[in-house]
Amino acid sequence: MADELVSPATLLYFLDMIGVIACAIAGTLLAQHKGFDISGCILVSMVNAIGGGTLRDMALDRHPLFWMTDLNYVIVITITSVVIQVFFHLYHKIDNALNLFDAIGLAAFSVIGFKVALAQDVSPLIAVMMGVWTSIVGGLMRDIICNELPLVLQREIYITASVAGSVTYLLLDHFGMDAGVNEFIMLGVIFAVRMLALRFDWHLPSIRLVK
Amino acid sequence: MADELVSPATLLYFLDMIGVIACAIAGTLLAQHKGFDISGCILVSMVNAIGGGTLRDMALDRHPLFWMTDLNYVIVITITSVVIQVFFHLYHKIDNALNLFDAIGLAAFSVIGFKVALAQDVSPLIAVMMGVWTSIVGGLMRDIICNELPLVLQREIYITASVAGSVTYLLLDHFGMDAGVNEFIMLGVIFAVRMLALRFDWHLPSIRLVK
Amino acid sequence: MADELVSPATLLYFLDMIGVIACAIAGTLLAQHKGFDISGCILVSMVNAIGGGTLRDMALDRHPLFWMTDLNYVIVITITSVVIQVFFHLYHKIDNALNLFDAIGLAAFSVIGFKVALAQDVSPLIAVMMGVWTSIVGGLMRDIICNELPLVLQREIYITASVAGSVTYLLLDHFGMDAGVNEFIMLGVIFAVRMLALRFDWHLPSIRLVK
Repeated sequence: MADELVSPATLLYFLDMIGVIACAIAGTLLAQHKGFDISGCILVSMVNAIGGGTLRDMALDRHPLFWMTDLNYVIVITITSVVIQVFFHLYHKIDNALNLFDAIGLAAFSVIGFKVALAQDVSPLIAVMMGVWTSIVGGLMRDIICNELPLVLQREIYITASVAGSVTYLLLDHFGMDAGVNEFIMLGVIFAVRMLALRFDWHLPSIRLVK
Repeated sequence: MADELVSPATLLYFLDMIGVIACAIAGTLLAQHKGFDISGCILVSMVNAIGGGTLRDMALDRHPLFWMTDLNYVIVITITSVVIQVFFHLYHKIDNALNLFDAIGLAAFSVIGFKVALAQDVSPLIAVMMGVWTSIVGGLMRDIICNELPLVLQREIYITASVAGSVTYLLLDHFGMDAGVNEFIMLGVIFAVRMLALRFDWHLPSIRLVK
Repeated sequence: MADELVSPATLLYFLDMIGVIACAIAGTLLAQHKGFDISGCILVSMVNAIGGGTLRDMALDRHPLFWMTDLNYVIVITITSVVIQVFFHLYHKIDNALNLFDAIGLAAFSVIGFKVALAQDVSPLIAVMMGVWTSIVGGLMRDIICNELPLVLQREIYITASVAGSVTYLLLDHFGMDAGVNEFIMLGVIFAVRMLALRFDWHLPSIRLVK
């Protein structure tokens, strides 16, 4: 993910790191709330930030795992977590920024998971699932460890935004869109859907004909 | 699992799908009860139906994962979950059918996990464990995600039924039983033990000499 | 891990088994407390004792998994769990022994995970993480299954002791210490830190400048 120096890959890597930072912050805040100690908070922030990608790569048999060859992930997460633990009292001021970072992360993680899966020659349906997997499994594992009902499965537009982006990519690809441009359209769609859902308080309903 | 067209394999595949449907229904019902949205319910039903087999194949280093090459799994689960979400109000009418489906799934999943492990040349003891693993880990993960104490670990005859079937297979195999026939005897034993346990309310005790 | 007959490897294997027994006891006791049945208790004790090493080997792509080739693990865990279930009433008498066993296990698991990772040519930072991973993920998974807030992430000196041992190893290695000797220094450091933390009730603080 980090090896190319050409511009689109670099930008995606940069957005990926923003997502990693957002996840590290979210994980640390919940872990602190649960009374975990310094190292416990770091561990939860790691699970939140790289747990989804780790499980994805294990499922796709991609070895070595990305964070074993690119140490930036582990270093960035550890520093972010420690900084947040020290300056926890500034939390209220970072709330809005966190939502923004989180939406960037959702978009970047989805695109990366989707691309990685396509590169392994799986069916498009599986690639859509891997985009979702990469972007939500980390948060799912964070909530499981912290003994909370997973936020991403509740009435929040996470999975839906990721799927919307992947489906847009597949449709445009069908009509011959250039892959590099398409990738950024996918990024934009996911980011937009998530931010609009936050701003206008959109929720996916539970469907049920009668109660 | 799906490639052979000969009758026993086809039948096992059919029973496998019944198990998958049972797990998808059970996962969806619990997820709805927890207030998850449409996509959250689908995710929990996937974990319930194919989570055990996924982790088994990752542990045995069998790649690509079965549901990545045979899309029927993901499609059947998604359709089942959506149908159940729409017709949730019919739940009471499907309760008994669900128990039946669930027992079929327990038997089919155990046989598949056991066979897959033996084909990887592991020891019989490990094959017995892989039968159990395939049949219960999905339900275990469903309950973990839904923040419930796992049902399969409580006083229900799930693990025991799976082990009884595997041990029967190994014993009969020792006495020269044909593998194809033996497989169906194993299926029958697991199904029978589970259904009898349900009907006569059998429970495995906690063992303790004195309190 | 078990193949060499030379003394240091044999000793490490012996300490590893003590750790496995400690984890099997701890897992069984919690599972009994939660009302799980015989097979449920065995399953939790397996997760506690070999879950961390299993996930580590899956992450490092080391196959077959260690407990699939060396059946001693599964057999020792099963026997330990059944014995504890039968003699649960003796629990109070084994409490102190359990802490001792647990500290031995923490040290042995950390050294094994650290060594295994180094042998896979990963960066030292990742090796330190793998030592932590091997020694705490089993307990983490036990608490997740039992619907408890993970003990190892709370203010207990587990992760810290493991990291202290790994860092000591790396420092001494830098100054040319023989690997065989160094391994036992690492074992000793982890064991000492954990036992001292227990005896003097050391806890890692939560860090926060102001509330």
